[in-house]
Amino acid sequence: MMKAVRNAPSEAIDRLLNPKSIAVVGSLREARFGGYVTASNLLRFGYAGRIYPVNPQYDAVLNLKVYPSVKDIPEPVDLVVTMAGATAVPKIIADSVQNRARAAIIVSDGFSERNDDGKRLQEEIRRIASGGGLRLLGPNTIGVANPSIGLITTPYRVTYEKMITGGIALCAQTGLIGPQNMPLEETHYGLSKMCDFGNKCDIDEIDLLDYLAEDPDTKVIAMHLEMIRDGQTFLKTARDVVPRKPVIVLKPGRTRESQRAMASHTGSLAGEDLVYEGAFKQAGVIRVDNFRDLIDIPKVLATQPLPRGNRVAIVTISGGAGVMAIDVASAHGLTLARLSSATLDKLAAVSPVLASNPVDLGPGLPAYQVPGGIASRFPAMIEAILEDENVDCLGMACPWGVRGKIAELFGPMVQRKKKTMAVWVAGPSLAIAEEMNRDFEAIGLPTYSDGDAAIRALAVAVRYARIKAGFS
Amino acid sequence: MMKAVRNAPSEAIDRLLNPKSIAVVGSLREARFGGYVTASNLLRFGYAGRIYPVNPQYDAVLNLKVYPSVKDIPEPVDLVVTMAGATAVPKIIADSVQNRARAAIIVSDGFSERNDDGKRLQEEIRRIASGGGLRLLGPNTIGVANPSIGLITTPYRVTYEKMITGGIALCAQTGLIGPQNMPLEETHYGLSKMCDFGNKCDIDEIDLLDYLAEDPDTKVIAMHLEMIRDGQTFLKTARDVVPRKPVIVLKPGRTRESQRAMASHTGSLAGEDLVYEGAFKQAGVIRVDNFRDLIDIPKVLATQPLPRGNRVAIVTISGGAGVMAIDVASAHGLTLARLSSATLDKLAAVSPVLASNPVDLGPGLPAYQVPGGIASRFPAMIEAILEDENVDCLGMACPWGVRGKIAELFGPMVQRKKKTMAVWVAGPSLAIAEEMNRDFEAIGLPTYSDGDAAIRALAVAVRYARIKAGFS
Repeated sequence: MMKAVRNAPSEAIDRLLNPKSIAVVGSLREARFGGYVTASNLLRFGYAGRIYPVNPQYDAVLNLKVYPSVKDIPEPVDLVVTMAGATAVPKIIADSVQNRARAAIIVSDGFSERNDDGKRLQEEIRRIASGGGLRLLGPNTIGVANPSIGLITTPYRVTYEKMITGGIALCAQTGLIGPQNMPLEETHYGLSKMCDFGNKCDIDEIDLLDYLAEDPDTKVIAMHLEMIRDGQTFLKTARDVVPRKPVIVLKPGRTRESQRAMASHTGSLAGEDLVYEGAFKQAGVIRVDNFRDLIDIPKVLATQPLPRGNRVAIVTISGGAGVMAIDVASAHGLTLARLSSATLDKLAAVSPVLASNPVDLGPGLPAYQVPGGIASRFPAMIEAILEDENVDCLGMACPWGVRGKIAELFGPMVQRKKKTMAVWVAGPSLAIAEEMNRDFEAIGLPTYSDGDAAIRALAVAVRYARIKAGFS
Repeated sequence: MMKAVRNAPSEAIDRLLNPKSIAVVGSLREARFGGYVTASNLLRFGYAGRIYPVNPQYDAVLNLKVYPSVKDIPEPVDLVVTMAGATAVPKIIADSVQNRARAAIIVSDGFSERNDDGKRLQEEIRRIASGGGLRLLGPNTIGVANPSIGLITTPYRVTYEKMITGGIALCAQTGLIGPQNMPLEETHYGLSKMCDFGNKCDIDEIDLLDYLAEDPDTKVIAMHLEMIRDGQTFLKTARDVVPRKPVIVLKPGRTRESQRAMASHTGSLAGEDLVYEGAFKQAGVIRVDNFRDLIDIPKVLATQPLPRGNRVAIVTISGGAGVMAIDVASAHGLTLARLSSATLDKLAAVSPVLASNPVDLGPGLPAYQVPGGIASRFPAMIEAILEDENVDCLGMACPWGVRGKIAELFGPMVQRKKKTMAVWVAGPSLAIAEEMNRDFEAIGLPTYSDGDAAIRALAVAVRYARIKAGFS
């Protein structure tokens, strides 16, 4: 990790993520990519601030007045977003400085990730911005999102209409986390802020850690980091944030081959993996192994109370699934809760075969699958488990019988937030499973693609609870 | 692993999986579970053999004549399926012997997995069947499926209409693999045979290995095994099968806690995990870690030619995804292919930024997303990579621009079966991704939920190719 001179922290990051006004610079042709798409995304997602499209060839677009240049906009804007060709960017940044803009997102590619000319160009815009007090995100980024104000800067069309406001801040050195690539609405994924660092010529993980630590909407910070520019400061900042909010990091580049590939796509150098590994441990940063975990694991931390211990109860729809869940639990530091005799009695009152942990719904499953039938007893079983003082967290497979009644049956239970829960729904229809997952997410219960993923998420919650306790 | 006396191999397993006639014994009430559901599933899925519902209280159901007992059926049936209560089963098995039936599936639970009475009951039916030359599957099983003849014995309603015939044989000690729990149609999952062993009182993994090794429809055998009854014979059989067909095994029970849970749900004892680990290696059996891998990894082996080496080409829609894919590839024994200059030239002719491995579609992605636009050049790029003699296998992310044209654009390429391929589709709509995945599966290209899973599947193909070469 290199040391670097840092720009002074400022509320410019707040302007980047909570802008009152945005200039959109780039092609305004109606297409699948570009300034037109960004402007129309902002309108569709209900962004209520002022939008200033910039392009010398237009007078108006999408019922918005178009300005020939950023410096012609009649107020200093909080944020400039540009997708103009790389060689046009220095002029746009200079214009933005003249406008007294606070932050600029450079969507355009062809900078340090491309070649030496690109490197020089990137250095040039960095210098212009730095001299003019303008903070830069990118280049080579799809920018930011903030669902609570309808902020979305991606220059790609998004196939849905709504982002969900929630507790997860996602930051990455890739546009994979952008709304154009994530089924945020279909999965009811609750986002507080999203930020793609791109080439990270200025704004970086430390700026965002600083900001997100204070952001009341953010409950958990998830970051994909190919390189960390200033290791010392990152660690210091992370140690400061971790006692307040969990920090989950995906750090690729475990091998020489991937390190070379990273250098070519963001023009950045990666450090030794073992150095990162040790540093993360020291700072209480939780490292995950793949992109799916980076996206899914934070859900349990964003919505659930922290577990007080590592004793897990497991509800499955098959004995075989229960065994697999125990394997995963043991491998990740959880232990199988011994249900109290009161709980066992309550379960046995529904059916004698239920009185154990894992609670296997399998033998009586047909009954649970009937809507309105014994399904109505299922939440009471879950409630009994959650009230058991021998249980710290619960991984719950959910039978289909509760379909359409999830809010009604589980909503009140979730409000009481007794224990850490993670849910999975399986079955012969993807569409039905997705609908039920959405319903669970909507009431604040995190869902996972299978028991394996749900149990691993609970294990991370246990781990974070210990890390947090260690700091206090 | 215990040694056990084995029933003589016979074509009874063929009668189990290719029955010409089936007796269905159990409740014929129209419900969500039971004999009625099994009989109606058989009719819905187009089973063309003779179906004999058995129940003393009915004359006819679903336009089928009902018989009071199995022994009243006017021909010896190939297969009896019973979901009658456990205590009624010995009589049904005796009747089946009297009918000279060949095989029986005991769906009913309440046997060795329940308590000592159940253990005795299980021993009793095993003895009756064994004396009468009747092979038993179960108890405590959802039975078998064979899509090529519309055979499906699950007593649960299935929400779809069609099973897909393909090269994967799935066997398990859990009903999780059953059509009632798997979105087989929505994912176009190509099954040759499915068999849930249940409590394994008779028919077991060795019977199925023997049978599936000779089954021309089966290209790859995937087994979930909580216990292996006769370790020596299993190893001997597996060593014989592995040079012909890959055998993928999920063996849970890595920990004491999960071993205890296994004992309670199938009444079986598990052996030491390390013994299994060594034995699998010796026999060339490939072990996977979780249920999802057991289901998904065989797809590449069922549909793709084996790779000649471990050099992987990667096509991504983002540089960041490329880096992650390389990490996974390196960790699993693949190496990044050095594309030939001819291939690099062909890629550069589309766009200079494409001329590398991973091939990152990201910078020009908007163009690929346009249906009918530059998307039409994408298959030629893929063809060039597949023709490169430095490439053994290809992990391919697919942009949405080819949506609706997958068969047309990729079909001919797949026919030529040049190299091992695995595909993943990502994006903001689950429904669109699922549709594209289905289209790829329908032309014989295996799809995975992300690059990570696709690359790991390719690595297993490389591993199996080496195992196979080692045997020859």
